[in-house]
Amino acid sequence: MTIADTNSWRGIQAELLRRINEREWLPGSLVPSEADLAIEFGCARATVNRAMREMADAGLLDRKRKAGTRVALHPTSRVVLDIPIIRLEVEQRGAEWRYSLIESSAEPASLALTSRLGLPRDSEMLHVRSLHYADNRPFLHEDRWINLDLLPHVRSVDFSAISANEWLIQNAPYTAGDISFSAMGADAGLADLLDAPEGAALFVIDRITWDKDRPVTAVRLSYAPGYRMNTKI
Amino acid sequence: MTIADTNSWRGIQAELLRRINEREWLPGSLVPSEADLAIEFGCARATVNRAMREMADAGLLDRKRKAGTRVALHPTSRVVLDIPIIRLEVEQRGAEWRYSLIESSAEPASLALTSRLGLPRDSEMLHVRSLHYADNRPFLHEDRWINLDLLPHVRSVDFSAISANEWLIQNAPYTAGDISFSAMGADAGLADLLDAPEGAALFVIDRITWDKDRPVTAVRLSYAPGYRMNTKI
Repeated sequence: MTIADTNSWRGIQAELLRRINEREWLPGSLVPSEADLAIEFGCARATVNRAMREMADAGLLDRKRKAGTRVALHPTSRVVLDIPIIRLEVEQRGAEWRYSLIESSAEPASLALTSRLGLPRDSEMLHVRSLHYADNRPFLHEDRWINLDLLPHVRSVDFSAISANEWLIQNAPYTAGDISFSAMGADAGLADLLDAPEGAALFVIDRITWDKDRPVTAVRLSYAPGYRMNTKI
Repeated sequence: MTIADTNSWRGIQAELLRRINEREWLPGSLVPSEADLAIEFGCARATVNRAMREMADAGLLDRKRKAGTRVALHPTSRVVLDIPIIRLEVEQRGAEWRYSLIESSAEPASLALTSRLGLPRDSEMLHVRSLHYADNRPFLHEDRWINLDLLPHVRSVDFSAISANEWLIQNAPYTAGDISFSAMGADAGLADLLDAPEGAALFVIDRITWDKDRPVTAVRLSYAPGYRMNTKI
């Protein structure tokens, strides 16, 4: 590129990218201020700001209000996922939602689960399993454990009338959650429920929500084959 | 609950949840101001604010700076994912990253791809396939197409020396991206590359990035079995 290019914000951006790429500016190093760069390139400060904003959004620059801007050590893409309640997710896809309770019973939770949740061994939790349908085709299997210590009155809820997903959103606020996404082969039981071949690749979301330090619920959502979760960067 | 409960922010939150749940406050309706609620509950405005903040974060209330607060129409969980470059993702897992180029060649892209990208039919694109390893075990397969119209100089890059993922982050800024997550059974080729059984459930990320309206690259990342993408709500 030539010096003339730095009259536009894209030209300036290309020059800044070159300096990062060719390690004139090392990862983690402090970048000159917008005011100084504007003087260097002979342009408005707003033009430099425009060039740097996208680079910050793309994770190439680290902007700190007081400490200035540094070349990022770890370039990342930031993705925001808005996970709606299941009924709305189905309806947003233009399909009719239907829900069917498989079982709801108080049971001792597995050691793996109680230790993950920090609950006493053999704690009784409410185990609720259900199927959500889109246009009468299985959409996902909801396999949920609810903390009866925190929500004792959940024992009396009729989960054939309202999904546990929806009831909890309306009745059990949480302060934090751990979520993980993975792929899993359908075992015989899930394959049967989801009307899929055994071993079919399923998209799985595991989520644990916490109210302060107390677990609210742990849920595994196993989506029928072909599901895609779409979003934008 | 009794009136006494509304002395604490959690009591107030329970009361607000009850009003939403029992549809005293309908979805989409305007909620009284914090000042009015503070008078109603006989508490400090900060206490009301504390109660409502979590409900807003949980997607139950919709706060607009000027238009006031409304009951959300679509309660959602908001999840932020920071997707690092692959090398760093491997290193953050405490493993050693290694990379191996499978092929890099200019080829006519499929009709499905060119039409998705808005490129002329049979456009030639750079097809780069590679494997990323963690501690010498296959971590993911990167199958990428790069827009040669936008990035003609990419033809001369040696992708056995730098991964396409890393080169693009350093050289090709983007303004927007579409991303989707899904699960896919491994075909024979992928199973062989990833050292997995044929049909194994793979976690897949498809990503297309755009520079203004022009496509930069389309990539499919297929992770070896057992991969989990973890984050927090």
